[in-house]
Amino acid sequence: MSETFFIVPEQQHNALVAAAYQHRGYHADESAEAARFCAEATRHGIRTHNGLKALHLDHLFGSGSKGCVPGAQIEGIPSRFAATKIWNANKKLGQSTAYRAMDEAIRLADEFGVGTVVVDNAFHYLWGGGYVMDAAKKGYIAYTNCTAALAEVVPFGGKFPTLGTNPHSWGFPTTDAVGFPIVIDWATSVVAMGRVQQLKREGKTLPPMAAVDKDGNPTTDPHAVTALLPFGAHKGYGLSLINEIVGGFIGGSLPTIRNRWQNVTEGDKGTCAFYFQVIHPDAINGGAFAHGRDQAANVKAVLADVLGHGNEKCMLPGQIEATWAGHSAKAGGLLFSKAEVEGFNELAAECGQPAWDLASFKTVEI
Amino acid sequence: MSETFFIVPEQQHNALVAAAYQHRGYHADESAEAARFCAEATRHGIRTHNGLKALHLDHLFGSGSKGCVPGAQIEGIPSRFAATKIWNANKKLGQSTAYRAMDEAIRLADEFGVGTVVVDNAFHYLWGGGYVMDAAKKGYIAYTNCTAALAEVVPFGGKFPTLGTNPHSWGFPTTDAVGFPIVIDWATSVVAMGRVQQLKREGKTLPPMAAVDKDGNPTTDPHAVTALLPFGAHKGYGLSLINEIVGGFIGGSLPTIRNRWQNVTEGDKGTCAFYFQVIHPDAINGGAFAHGRDQAANVKAVLADVLGHGNEKCMLPGQIEATWAGHSAKAGGLLFSKAEVEGFNELAAECGQPAWDLASFKTVEI
Repeated sequence: MSETFFIVPEQQHNALVAAAYQHRGYHADESAEAARFCAEATRHGIRTHNGLKALHLDHLFGSGSKGCVPGAQIEGIPSRFAATKIWNANKKLGQSTAYRAMDEAIRLADEFGVGTVVVDNAFHYLWGGGYVMDAAKKGYIAYTNCTAALAEVVPFGGKFPTLGTNPHSWGFPTTDAVGFPIVIDWATSVVAMGRVQQLKREGKTLPPMAAVDKDGNPTTDPHAVTALLPFGAHKGYGLSLINEIVGGFIGGSLPTIRNRWQNVTEGDKGTCAFYFQVIHPDAINGGAFAHGRDQAANVKAVLADVLGHGNEKCMLPGQIEATWAGHSAKAGGLLFSKAEVEGFNELAAECGQPAWDLASFKTVEI
Repeated sequence: MSETFFIVPEQQHNALVAAAYQHRGYHADESAEAARFCAEATRHGIRTHNGLKALHLDHLFGSGSKGCVPGAQIEGIPSRFAATKIWNANKKLGQSTAYRAMDEAIRLADEFGVGTVVVDNAFHYLWGGGYVMDAAKKGYIAYTNCTAALAEVVPFGGKFPTLGTNPHSWGFPTTDAVGFPIVIDWATSVVAMGRVQQLKREGKTLPPMAAVDKDGNPTTDPHAVTALLPFGAHKGYGLSLINEIVGGFIGGSLPTIRNRWQNVTEGDKGTCAFYFQVIHPDAINGGAFAHGRDQAANVKAVLADVLGHGNEKCMLPGQIEATWAGHSAKAGGLLFSKAEVEGFNELAAECGQPAWDLASFKTVEI
């Protein structure tokens, strides 16, 4: 079944999103970075992190709460090491911080082969896949993880949520090899808490082993859910724990008080932490590929082998996002549903901007 | 139900394992590294990668096949980058290569904050957790992945095995925080192929979603299994793919011919690739921990929060290994079952070394 999308010019979208951020006190440069990031999310079909969700999240945990400070300045922490940087984001907007951190990690990788930027006192960067995809499109191998906003996930075998959905995101410069950057990007929970709410509204059940009730017993009843489960039992738990440990080394405090500002006492911290890493592909190029291939041709041959032999219907991570980017490019704008356009018009009213005229947009069925 | 273990003096174990490697043509230094690694595996209860398994694997894929060359010399590949190294292992013994690569990554991290060593033409390093645990005990954050020996795993939604069990291993210097290094270390398949063989022998069934039959349909019948499934559906698939992509960037060729030397034609490659990375904890220390904690105290507080609130029975990754190391230390030697001691005596006969006298060993029940 196809869905109707309205084709919104990117400039028009970015102007409204930037205005909405500026209305909340954000400076022009960070509002522009936020708008650019929301456009990228929509372009790639990441509807869970479009402009509406970004501004809603800012309201819940950001400038509407104590998580994010418009106009905050990033501060570099002195370090004796050359290939790594430590930043105090001072609760600056997550998208601005992440774009700048990834750019800095790229600069470090250009110089040293590998570069790492860690960020303390950070605010939610929304969609980690967006930053590694951006770096991969520029030709780099990129990775990021962060501590997620709220502890909603139980450790393997536990019953109380003490871990975030703690995403990991990897991007690879595979456009020459397969036509798009491979982006491996997911949360370490089986589903998001938003999905549980949605299933509750729709009267549906959860997949098995996705959530637990108050006693820590797995449940598929969304009404009984008190916390989420990590994917892959102890393996997803381990991956989720990595973000908490790395965050703990950087400067994050207890996961159970993170972004729960009413529980953050004097001298404690409720902020997130970010980790970014970039590798220059030349820095891991052994130069001795089979049959005289170059590096890109070798990666292409490896991926063709993985998806050959009867596996032709399998997809590569990042392929869905690339397909969406194709739809957006073909349409010549960003694609929004009617409900989404109406949501943007509520935003427009909130910040005194002209409403979008539905009738002015062409439509496309996808 | 407890099991009886024979307490074998570490020196006696290492002498036999080293002699067995030397008997196969390995030099004294690499044989000593192999023995040291096997002792570490046994000390930490990693019975799937003890000396018996290491020498069996060497027979199947290493010096007994075309995968490993005793006495091979590692060659550095010139690079313009300072914080990364590219090595051609020339099929040197995996344990020797991995120990040396991790040491080099530590040296780079000491200088630059982060250090990466990649290895082309590598041979199976057995237990990735051993190298990151070693680095973590020395105070570093370490990571490694490799392309596994054989393609035995189908991509998500596929039916033909084109991926290895492709492990990822992370180690964290958490001895000050929790008494042992946290080591997150697992294959990206649900189970190993060896487990399928074992269940077949025992007339038992597999867990659900662990393997597929020849048509790509999930099966729990070990007799019908033709390939393994990645854990966590598309998430484990993505993780497995990372190793193949990184291997492809370094210099590995097609996964389906890897270590299948009869299928490796002139000009192609059947070797594995390794990736090692070390981060100095000072290089990610933001220095602004809650309540004036230092870094180790902060990590300790974060982990106590994760395992608090009713989650006290949950374990940390690496805890089982640390418990085994405690058993070994208390016993004052390495712990082997009767069948394992008998296995070592077969090895002893093979390389003309004196047999171990079962009656000479003290025993312990665990």
